[in-house]
Amino acid sequence: MHKTSQIYGIRAVLEAINSEESIDKIFIQRGLKSDLSQELESAVRKNQINISYVPIEKLNRLTKNNHQGVVANISPISFHQLEELVETVLESKKLPLFLLLDQLSDVRNFGAIIRTAECTGVDGIIIQKKGAAPVTSDTVKTSAGAAFKVPIAKVDHIKDAVFYLQASGIQVISATEKTENTIYDVSFNAPIAIVMGSEDRGISPSILKASDQMAKLPLLGEIQSLNVSVACAVFLYEAVRQRMK
Amino acid sequence: MHKTSQIYGIRAVLEAINSEESIDKIFIQRGLKSDLSQELESAVRKNQINISYVPIEKLNRLTKNNHQGVVANISPISFHQLEELVETVLESKKLPLFLLLDQLSDVRNFGAIIRTAECTGVDGIIIQKKGAAPVTSDTVKTSAGAAFKVPIAKVDHIKDAVFYLQASGIQVISATEKTENTIYDVSFNAPIAIVMGSEDRGISPSILKASDQMAKLPLLGEIQSLNVSVACAVFLYEAVRQRMK
Repeated sequence: MHKTSQIYGIRAVLEAINSEESIDKIFIQRGLKSDLSQELESAVRKNQINISYVPIEKLNRLTKNNHQGVVANISPISFHQLEELVETVLESKKLPLFLLLDQLSDVRNFGAIIRTAECTGVDGIIIQKKGAAPVTSDTVKTSAGAAFKVPIAKVDHIKDAVFYLQASGIQVISATEKTENTIYDVSFNAPIAIVMGSEDRGISPSILKASDQMAKLPLLGEIQSLNVSVACAVFLYEAVRQRMK
Repeated sequence: MHKTSQIYGIRAVLEAINSEESIDKIFIQRGLKSDLSQELESAVRKNQINISYVPIEKLNRLTKNNHQGVVANISPISFHQLEELVETVLESKKLPLFLLLDQLSDVRNFGAIIRTAECTGVDGIIIQKKGAAPVTSDTVKTSAGAAFKVPIAKVDHIKDAVFYLQASGIQVISATEKTENTIYDVSFNAPIAIVMGSEDRGISPSILKASDQMAKLPLLGEIQSLNVSVACAVFLYEAVRQRMK
């Protein structure tokens, strides 16, 4: 991790939260108690930032500087607001293509997906604040730099993003094997958002239920799943193909 | 690496070569000289096995056993003969779909490609003996076990495999950006073999020249390439799509 992607000290971290820096995760010393640390914890909760309570030794390994019991990992990219992102895309008159990642957890898969998204003209990637693979320097590297080009929005809950997109006239298509429809039966030639699930559990049942459509990839062999970054690429290129016609 | 995937000792390794065990790579102690070691080196050359001359310390790290200056990595899978593989597929009356990998070097990409190949009904993967990512236990793991299901053939030169496939009535389509044709302009609804290139250099010029067709993926962004395992998946699924019609 680059040195610049870390900040430390209660006041510095609090300042970063208040100025809406892209914080991936905060490490707080177990048992830390002061007025300022309570202010920090309440700001962390309010902004739904990932938090981890750790022994002081862990913090000492994270930085050699005077951390005062608090270290924060800063994302190398800036995140977008979902509402502004959707508005900008709708105004552009381009046929919208969004990608929602429902708690995808592997940094390499995330990076690979961002790279493919850039190559297929995705307008924005939407991830959840909690439980999602963070945007680290590894993510940026695996994305071949695409993480700086594709807008990424962090939301409190993917499900709320689904409702917001639908209210904006965007159809939500979930990538799941729990359907008879293949990607070739579904129209991507409309304003759409594609949802990809996590590596181990797929898409949450409540999000599947909220989706407008579900689609799967035909699997011709015995193995019953593809790698998620591979599956995502095939979905996105099917959208590219249908829109070229 | 599993313990069973390694053998050592000049005579044991020589025996393994002669009984056509799937050897990925042989490590020989630098400066080793004896009648038997010369016999070994000539067998290695004849069978075009990857060889690496190393200091004795490296061999001592590879095994605690009495290696006599020679350690060989055995592949966890058995390889097929190209000729038999092609014959079996042609006799099956299925529309053939082969995949050639021109010196793909990353084990994780290789594993991911084998997994996708299994899911898309690929009849066989053809790799080159020298310069290709080996089939290690990591490859098997990344492939989600597909390495045990999809036949893999190792050939001396990918170019000779191209000529052999063409002589068997199979069209060779190279995945390259050096063409105006996208995958949607090309027919995959025929007996075909798809060639994917290496991560850094793509497909060798002589293989591009020998191909029947070239096809690219449309790239809508600024980044001028996809990850090779992702690109391969989109090619294979385009074949699946066209053949479903």
